[in-house]
Amino acid sequence: MPVRIGVVGVGTFGINHLRAFRQASREGAAELLAAADLNPDRLEAMCREFGIRGYQNYREMLEKEALDAVSVATPDHLHGEIVVTALEAGKHVLVEKPLDVTVAGCERMLAAAQAAGRLLEVDFHKRFDPYHIELARLVRAGKLGKPLYGYCHMEDRIEVPRDWFPQWAPKSSPVWFLGVHFYDLVRWVLDSDPVSVFARGQKQKLVSLGVDTYDSVQAQVEFANGAVVSFDTSWILPDGFEAIVNQGIRLVGTEGVIEVDSQDRGARSCLAADKGMRTYNLGFMRELTDRRGETVFAGYGIESIVEFVDNVSALQDGASLPDLSGRYAGGEDGLAVTRIACGAEESLRTGQVALV
Amino acid sequence: MPVRIGVVGVGTFGINHLRAFRQASREGAAELLAAADLNPDRLEAMCREFGIRGYQNYREMLEKEALDAVSVATPDHLHGEIVVTALEAGKHVLVEKPLDVTVAGCERMLAAAQAAGRLLEVDFHKRFDPYHIELARLVRAGKLGKPLYGYCHMEDRIEVPRDWFPQWAPKSSPVWFLGVHFYDLVRWVLDSDPVSVFARGQKQKLVSLGVDTYDSVQAQVEFANGAVVSFDTSWILPDGFEAIVNQGIRLVGTEGVIEVDSQDRGARSCLAADKGMRTYNLGFMRELTDRRGETVFAGYGIESIVEFVDNVSALQDGASLPDLSGRYAGGEDGLAVTRIACGAEESLRTGQVALV
Amino acid sequence: MPVRIGVVGVGTFGINHLRAFRQASREGAAELLAAADLNPDRLEAMCREFGIRGYQNYREMLEKEALDAVSVATPDHLHGEIVVTALEAGKHVLVEKPLDVTVAGCERMLAAAQAAGRLLEVDFHKRFDPYHIELARLVRAGKLGKPLYGYCHMEDRIEVPRDWFPQWAPKSSPVWFLGVHFYDLVRWVLDSDPVSVFARGQKQKLVSLGVDTYDSVQAQVEFANGAVVSFDTSWILPDGFEAIVNQGIRLVGTEGVIEVDSQDRGARSCLAADKGMRTYNLGFMRELTDRRGETVFAGYGIESIVEFVDNVSALQDGASLPDLSGRYAGGEDGLAVTRIACGAEESLRTGQVALV
Amino acid sequence: MPVRIGVVGVGTFGINHLRAFRQASREGAAELLAAADLNPDRLEAMCREFGIRGYQNYREMLEKEALDAVSVATPDHLHGEIVVTALEAGKHVLVEKPLDVTVAGCERMLAAAQAAGRLLEVDFHKRFDPYHIELARLVRAGKLGKPLYGYCHMEDRIEVPRDWFPQWAPKSSPVWFLGVHFYDLVRWVLDSDPVSVFARGQKQKLVSLGVDTYDSVQAQVEFANGAVVSFDTSWILPDGFEAIVNQGIRLVGTEGVIEVDSQDRGARSCLAADKGMRTYNLGFMRELTDRRGETVFAGYGIESIVEFVDNVSALQDGASLPDLSGRYAGGEDGLAVTRIACGAEESLRTGQVALV
Repeated sequence: MPVRIGVVGVGTFGINHLRAFRQASREGAAELLAAADLNPDRLEAMCREFGIRGYQNYREMLEKEALDAVSVATPDHLHGEIVVTALEAGKHVLVEKPLDVTVAGCERMLAAAQAAGRLLEVDFHKRFDPYHIELARLVRAGKLGKPLYGYCHMEDRIEVPRDWFPQWAPKSSPVWFLGVHFYDLVRWVLDSDPVSVFARGQKQKLVSLGVDTYDSVQAQVEFANGAVVSFDTSWILPDGFEAIVNQGIRLVGTEGVIEVDSQDRGARSCLAADKGMRTYNLGFMRELTDRRGETVFAGYGIESIVEFVDNVSALQDGASLPDLSGRYAGGEDGLAVTRIACGAEESLRTGQVALV
Repeated sequence: MPVRIGVVGVGTFGINHLRAFRQASREGAAELLAAADLNPDRLEAMCREFGIRGYQNYREMLEKEALDAVSVATPDHLHGEIVVTALEAGKHVLVEKPLDVTVAGCERMLAAAQAAGRLLEVDFHKRFDPYHIELARLVRAGKLGKPLYGYCHMEDRIEVPRDWFPQWAPKSSPVWFLGVHFYDLVRWVLDSDPVSVFARGQKQKLVSLGVDTYDSVQAQVEFANGAVVSFDTSWILPDGFEAIVNQGIRLVGTEGVIEVDSQDRGARSCLAADKGMRTYNLGFMRELTDRRGETVFAGYGIESIVEFVDNVSALQDGASLPDLSGRYAGGEDGLAVTRIACGAEESLRTGQVALV
Repeated sequence: MPVRIGVVGVGTFGINHLRAFRQASREGAAELLAAADLNPDRLEAMCREFGIRGYQNYREMLEKEALDAVSVATPDHLHGEIVVTALEAGKHVLVEKPLDVTVAGCERMLAAAQAAGRLLEVDFHKRFDPYHIELARLVRAGKLGKPLYGYCHMEDRIEVPRDWFPQWAPKSSPVWFLGVHFYDLVRWVLDSDPVSVFARGQKQKLVSLGVDTYDSVQAQVEFANGAVVSFDTSWILPDGFEAIVNQGIRLVGTEGVIEVDSQDRGARSCLAADKGMRTYNLGFMRELTDRRGETVFAGYGIESIVEFVDNVSALQDGASLPDLSGRYAGGEDGLAVTRIACGAEESLRTGQVALV
Repeated sequence: MPVRIGVVGVGTFGINHLRAFRQASREGAAELLAAADLNPDRLEAMCREFGIRGYQNYREMLEKEALDAVSVATPDHLHGEIVVTALEAGKHVLVEKPLDVTVAGCERMLAAAQAAGRLLEVDFHKRFDPYHIELARLVRAGKLGKPLYGYCHMEDRIEVPRDWFPQWAPKSSPVWFLGVHFYDLVRWVLDSDPVSVFARGQKQKLVSLGVDTYDSVQAQVEFANGAVVSFDTSWILPDGFEAIVNQGIRLVGTEGVIEVDSQDRGARSCLAADKGMRTYNLGFMRELTDRRGETVFAGYGIESIVEFVDNVSALQDGASLPDLSGRYAGGEDGLAVTRIACGAEESLRTGQVALV
């Protein structure tokens, strides 16, 4: 029986939820029925494109549609109420990263999921990049020896906060928009929980453009296994940068070093039409045309969302939540990551180390 | 109705055919029934691992098994008789690259496929690398302007001819084992046929080890659209090289340049256990464990073979061969590539330009 | 006694001759006295900047100035008469690459140098890049084993033929402007002479802009030691390319592979002011300020010219020409490179292999 | 008048002081007269190689030799007494980095230099890498906008603490042996003083080998201009790593990003004799043979030491110490860097942010 799904929030990234579920629908694994969004124009456009029903009020969608599952891709600070409401309505829920922007918000979600006996999953798609999977495999197999330290960077071109989300960016920051991707990745690769975080940040460029948020945040996180990883995040790269995002990770242990450039995968161009250099990360998302002539999106940005359908299917087929344990980023993972992000914010405020 | 398949030749690369078809079988698209191989030990081991029936004589397999399709992964010079026999028996046929080592051999296969009205497909898996697909898309969309020239290299560590195939290597060469991958790729990306080839080669290292074949061959190919591409191939890289293969492509046109490192995809390690540096091309093949706990192989090395199943399925569902045109590397493509390779061999012999 | 020098041709690259000799003058090794150029405005500007006397007619300079040595940095096709005249006047001569654009022209120069007993040196500055020197050292020490094959690329942004030299570019080509750099480098690294060359070329982009010359030339050169090296040259890279030149070399031998990216030396930027990515080859030329507050230029582009002063000094101090043998690129080297370039042109014309 | 020089400490790095001064001697700028070292065998070998007089007791050297200047390349913790004694004896002094391992030690040196009116210079050679100079130039010219954050890594192969200095390594650490290079570089590039430092470290691998020191230290330094830079240092890279050191720097500002790989300069090899991959940083040091057939060492590792001779010469020619201000890394710079290193050590002890 296909998983009946509705999506709440169909903006910049919500469209990828729609794409993933449409593809799962073509395979017979899902049935994408409806979407909810506060913006009526965007909602109508998406409903037309994906052939689904639209609701400005997500509660109405929950009442009127016979849904098994809901995915939430609204701005971060709006996740809380929607997720709890959906869980209380008995839906399995996928939440775009970060789970919530407060620890208390995450805890409310976990309690609701627990009470409802429903799946609460977070879309941390960096875990689905094959090179990150290999990194985790090598680390967990002990090939790196004892992990000692590492460095991650995730940096967006300035168009993201300046042009894509000028209204919302002041409610977010490089910590929430970018950092959580790699906080989760490292915690997952190391299989170790964060202990403390020390962070510094700068407000210069975006403030000067009328967008009141951090340009950049540097967070150094200590994990329970003794490893210390630094995370540099920013969203002010010049417009001429070779990709929309610059990202990567390096880890050093007693027996070696592993480095993954998570953006530059060895393909590079300079085309007159682009007016400059470009790199390509086709692992994240690429557009294909299938045999039926339909547009298909492939890559870890899609697979991560489709995974949720697989999990709900398994539950419908009789699996229990504990059976799925370790197979997905769940509420506990989302909470742990939000603890790091909140710790970084606390450290930015106090100038001191924050315990996580 | 699943495609009933048998594999002829289950050595080094044949195992990937078995893996691909087993996976298609799990999805219900195929039914992998049998394999044939001259080596009884290897045959028995593979039959046990894949739960299929084995035949030392492929003709016996064709007679006794109710097969829709056959894939052939024997040494190159043995393709001819098997492919023609299978086509004459009414089977759809997938052939590991190169199609055949002579133009006449290819032409016999094409005639047999034509007479039988059956699919003849060649496994040129470089076409399935997402970065090569993007390269082709950009070139065909005119982003490179008019293609002018390019360079490809494909180089194996010396263990390949020295340790993997010391008996067979003298019957092959860097042209046949490596070159054909990139000859086909460039012809496909440029969508233009070869006109002439000029080649030089060296015999030094392998001959000194008792393996009588070329260490390296340099072939410069002119295409009908005026573009000229140089292909450097060798299989004598030192044992300490960072990967089993070094490969890449660069193309320059009137409006730009595109480069793909087909091996180094931005992930690199130095692990004490490896005694040196390593790069990772997970796009080619990677091992996963699925929800059922089964080992799964992903990557373009597998997808390219599964494509054959999709094609046969489409035919079984009523498509005609012309309907599939342009969707796969067929006999004509295999023939065109063999013309380049034979042209390179002729040029090596004569010292002159060979028309293709 | 300082070497008294005059420079003929003070355009784009001639200015580097002036810079190099001014610096040698500061060290007391040279005395830069005069320059000659057909363009009176450029001549006057240079004479003012460098504090030297100017002559529109180089013969007048040779007559009126007491020179020991002359360097020639005119357009290539004008080298011949000037060099022979200077040699006949008893001057030691440095010639910007290529020595001459015909074999006969080179031979006339060699004969004149021989008759006059004077130094004839060619400015092949790629030999002075420390990474190329290390490459040569490793190859000559046998670390690469027996050299088998290689690939060089040298590519300029289109501004070079389109904006810098639109008048002269039709008299030149990627072979003469770029190829000769790497033809000489490879011949020097391999310490082996060329035997034959096969070349192809394309005329598309520049012709469409009214500049009648090749966009690109591909030359495959066979050397006496059996190694075959392909040289891709072009000058049509888009304006947005990360550097004015893209260049590199890779050589493969029986015992290994060595690669040098001759442009990208590990430094990269994206600066808003540059509107795109940039790489830096500071090895070629960099501007410094010395203790006296004077601007100084460093790098192999300068060192290569200063070497000429050292050679003339050694001769003045009593060394004979044979004593200097092997220390510099001389007339014989220039001739050998011109033979390759002329062979490439012949092959472009005939479509056949040209013997060198 | 040549600068008369003696060297104290002629071990691993002291030999580079001898090389640099010998070369300055050949140019007539210096006169390398003597060396002092506690190890009589090493001392004798060096004196023989460099044709100088040797003293086991540096005080005896100071008394018996008519020296203008002394350079000190002993283990770090022994710098203090030697430097102060030499300054008090009226010598100009060059000290290998770090100046001293305590703030008080540095302050004593500064006081002694002040009292004696003598030059006190620190050999921070990273400042002499042309790519670092370009980085500084771009940053100071405002091309990066306002500097926001950065990342440096400097990592040695484990042979350095395990095989080169097993006795001394426990008295040093990645902070002192490696970190100070980049602490100084960043402070110099940013032209801003450190405010605070937060550091974490790990002891695992070397302790297990009987060498009681940190494997790795991560220090996050805040500068007065608001920029925050993370420094990852370690000396436990596997023996198979492609170079003896891995190092680099990236800086991000409001107007861009600049990255310098301070080890991998675009040249790479895999040679059978090396049993693996290698990269080459010829900018640091390379060996040449000059016209006289003498071995010459070039690169920033040498130039940085020769600079000291230039400074002393300028003083001898009548310049005052203030005239030289800004031209070299002096005592104040050494002190500032030692403050960072001591702050890192304090933070490692306390777990809190250390003010610098």
